[in-house]
Amino acid sequence: MLGLMQNWPLTVDKILDHAKEWHGGREVVSRSVEGPIVRTTYGQIHERAKRLSNALKGLGVQPGDRVATLAWNTGRHIEAWYGIMGIGAVCHTLNPRLFAEQLVYIVNHAEDKVIFSDLTFLPVLAELLPKMPSVQHVIVMSDDEHLKGCPIPGALSFEALVSQHSADCVWGGFDENTAAGLCYTSGTTGNPKGVLYSHRSNFLHTLVTMGVDVLGISAKDTVLPVVPMFHANAWGLALSGPASGAKLVMPGQKLDGASVHELLESEQVTFSAAVPTVWQMLLTHLRETNGKLTSLKRVVIGGSAVPEAIVRGFRDEFGVDVTHAWGMTETSPLGTQATPNAAIAAMSDEDQLRYKLKQGRPPVTIQLALQDDAGADLPHDGTTFGKLKVKGPFVVGEYFRGDGGAILDENGFFDTGDVATLDEHGFMQITDRAKDVIKSGGEWISSIEIENIAAGHPKAALAAVIGVYHPKWDERPLLLVRLKDGQEGTKEEFLAFLEGKIAKWWTPDDVVFVDDIPLGATGKIDKKLIRDRMKDYVLPTAQVREKA
Amino acid sequence: MLGLMQNWPLTVDKILDHAKEWHGGREVVSRSVEGPIVRTTYGQIHERAKRLSNALKGLGVQPGDRVATLAWNTGRHIEAWYGIMGIGAVCHTLNPRLFAEQLVYIVNHAEDKVIFSDLTFLPVLAELLPKMPSVQHVIVMSDDEHLKGCPIPGALSFEALVSQHSADCVWGGFDENTAAGLCYTSGTTGNPKGVLYSHRSNFLHTLVTMGVDVLGISAKDTVLPVVPMFHANAWGLALSGPASGAKLVMPGQKLDGASVHELLESEQVTFSAAVPTVWQMLLTHLRETNGKLTSLKRVVIGGSAVPEAIVRGFRDEFGVDVTHAWGMTETSPLGTQATPNAAIAAMSDEDQLRYKLKQGRPPVTIQLALQDDAGADLPHDGTTFGKLKVKGPFVVGEYFRGDGGAILDENGFFDTGDVATLDEHGFMQITDRAKDVIKSGGEWISSIEIENIAAGHPKAALAAVIGVYHPKWDERPLLLVRLKDGQEGTKEEFLAFLEGKIAKWWTPDDVVFVDDIPLGATGKIDKKLIRDRMKDYVLPTAQVREKA
Repeated sequence: MLGLMQNWPLTVDKILDHAKEWHGGREVVSRSVEGPIVRTTYGQIHERAKRLSNALKGLGVQPGDRVATLAWNTGRHIEAWYGIMGIGAVCHTLNPRLFAEQLVYIVNHAEDKVIFSDLTFLPVLAELLPKMPSVQHVIVMSDDEHLKGCPIPGALSFEALVSQHSADCVWGGFDENTAAGLCYTSGTTGNPKGVLYSHRSNFLHTLVTMGVDVLGISAKDTVLPVVPMFHANAWGLALSGPASGAKLVMPGQKLDGASVHELLESEQVTFSAAVPTVWQMLLTHLRETNGKLTSLKRVVIGGSAVPEAIVRGFRDEFGVDVTHAWGMTETSPLGTQATPNAAIAAMSDEDQLRYKLKQGRPPVTIQLALQDDAGADLPHDGTTFGKLKVKGPFVVGEYFRGDGGAILDENGFFDTGDVATLDEHGFMQITDRAKDVIKSGGEWISSIEIENIAAGHPKAALAAVIGVYHPKWDERPLLLVRLKDGQEGTKEEFLAFLEGKIAKWWTPDDVVFVDDIPLGATGKIDKKLIRDRMKDYVLPTAQVREKA
Repeated sequence: MLGLMQNWPLTVDKILDHAKEWHGGREVVSRSVEGPIVRTTYGQIHERAKRLSNALKGLGVQPGDRVATLAWNTGRHIEAWYGIMGIGAVCHTLNPRLFAEQLVYIVNHAEDKVIFSDLTFLPVLAELLPKMPSVQHVIVMSDDEHLKGCPIPGALSFEALVSQHSADCVWGGFDENTAAGLCYTSGTTGNPKGVLYSHRSNFLHTLVTMGVDVLGISAKDTVLPVVPMFHANAWGLALSGPASGAKLVMPGQKLDGASVHELLESEQVTFSAAVPTVWQMLLTHLRETNGKLTSLKRVVIGGSAVPEAIVRGFRDEFGVDVTHAWGMTETSPLGTQATPNAAIAAMSDEDQLRYKLKQGRPPVTIQLALQDDAGADLPHDGTTFGKLKVKGPFVVGEYFRGDGGAILDENGFFDTGDVATLDEHGFMQITDRAKDVIKSGGEWISSIEIENIAAGHPKAALAAVIGVYHPKWDERPLLLVRLKDGQEGTKEEFLAFLEGKIAKWWTPDDVVFVDDIPLGATGKIDKKLIRDRMKDYVLPTAQVREKA
């Protein structure tokens, strides 16, 4: 027997309808790509997004067509999102930090029909467009004035399209499982793969993240999404902001400490979200300028493990609460958040910190599993490493066009490729990427844990740990260090620095000082490239043993 | 094109699975019907609910069968809910405060196959069972010891069933639109009508109410649901509690001020929800005993309009934040909540109070419309009265067995039967029930607004206002007052008390002092009965005019 409640498909156009109806005058403030601060409202964004929808229809965009955005976080980018998704087209966010060849691959794989582009990216786009045959139109996210000298012939102006079209456009009315968004994974191995979000998955992610123990965005909040809309959908903030009636402050392309601080203060931001490097830049700026944070209350950090010094800095110097979150493109992205439960909240600040540095616990709708290679469940004891798998209504079921084949296990779980622990409070901690974990004598060693500690050495600028072939142990850890400018270091002092901080058998078999530790498009250490560079390297311990 | 995210049906068994997996040791504390305080955990509740599922299957309960509960808020009641819903049967909550004939009507209309009953209700149930032919089994929510002398032959003991059955039972696996719960409206006109909730609607209601601007239950909270699970599902707290990992404190049958206060303090409750009368009793008790509230932070009040004195009392004497909420059985129930937006939060406490006394604004997924009789939208100016209509994924689509026919308008909205205003901040205020609004000379007068003010007269115990026939104005207001014991009053002093507090033309044409103002099963004034009693009454103003 079926229930008799209303049929109300979860389509994201209803989120902006809600913002217009109940928070229509609430501001969305952007640092525009042209320079000035631009102020608009949810009411105006709703109307302009509808006009864009008509413009897209006029350009021949049909339901299911992919329409890409190559853009910073601005009000116009939000208008593009809803204008695309409202008519059943698929909003494909492009990461401008990708290498040119990856951008070309992705646009061709998605068969994007239209690309919205900020002024910033026009020179690159002009160069690549000849290799992107599916793209029929480029819409420049600016006005006619700024289009002068545009290197792309026939490019359209966003503002002209908005002014030329009517706001009379019906949104939604389709199945909630209709595709809404497309985002490609950064692809450290193989080609990038597309995650095709549905209206339902976006809507459910929005509702879950609005929970008080997740992002908990309120109508009282002023939210600054530093995390880009092209990077795992700005953790959904362009959806949860309007859904909650929060004021949004969009930082455009300026993400340096001074620019972020200026917006935090001038707009009296209460909540922000970004990767650790952004917060490190902000802390450095604040310390150098004796800056204050007069309104900021909460900061969510994700994208990579949060350094303890950032949590302490915000807490002790600025009274700002930092919460660590984990997710990936494949999880829409929020999977866990290190919000204390009652037992942890009752601990001292120092004890709480141990949990705040973990990736945290899953909200309802996210199922996590910790398993060994054979698929057997491992204990939640905080020390046993295992494969982290995830299941839920906003977790990927398969990649776009079936890339990578069947990606769920027999119980419907997606293997994140992360290696993690789970503790007695259900707090998950990533210890490594599965492909980076070092398998030594049948036991696992976390490369990330060692490199995080080594990076804390006063002489180190960056540190990386990889597993290197060893005839007896299969693999042993090798530590690579890029020293700070002007510093000199020895293997012995780095190994001494690690002593007592890691298990003795985790001690790297060697330390190599390098001029460069390469980073990928999302700012993470590119271990694949490091392994390539070190492929002829032989451990001294391996040589000795072979001689023996 | 459809998205490629996982297929993860929103069935409520996953909520208790989540609680077991991530908050398994979190306590659920009950004041048992037998007397003692009983402590259990989500882990244990999960296991016992699974055992109950097997017991129900053993009794022949099939998917879609209705299984009723006649019970107070306890851990066992939660076990019954999940045990029933997990196997696709329908949990039908019976309101024991209904008249016997209504209970019989409802059980027969639902064709309940099994009834779970607390010890309290066995004598009444024993009397009514012969008139309930569909009921095959009664499960007494206690142990064998307490079953001795049970007036129902063949009644089963809850504890015996739990101990006799295995916890090995598969839950869920069905369509998320499967019926999960059934609750009948109080039915002040005509027969009670059944609202048939689905797993999807329950799950979405849970996610929405977990939002920081709605109930906002956190894993750090200790929640005392005073509002009964048989009264609009305890506002979903038996779902949002486990979904968030909050500790639950279930008050059983003792809802007086002293008993509620004892639990609030002994269990260090942080959040509670109830109708105004419960809070009035608590405030009275606290003042009489010089009691303190050392942990309580937030209280949500709904069910009927919240008196200003309660909000002020909690705020000024106890530092507790009171939030007003509105909903109905047909909305699962939460429809609006008076959580301040940024503009209201910036006001003085006194200015905020004007908004806190309203029913509040809708969360995303709830659409409200304010319309005149012809279905035209009315302005959101805070003064224009109109019909309040509602639409959303946890709003009723049709009543059980089609009672009342098609109940949605051409745009899919359900008419709440309430008359309300909406202001510039989107805050809704109920001014009357549509059938109680007084239509005088083509304009509407709110009976509730007048009676709320009149009830504030120091001599008044209760006040009610109804519309009475008038030859010129169609209807004019009549004020009925039940005086406090030992008081005497005059028409003139009550009209003088209203002066300046309501529009002059709203002034009742007469005041009648009565010994009894009848209340219905949910504690609201029964105006239908009052109108019946007053049907031969003629207004003095009408008589004068007829003579003239």
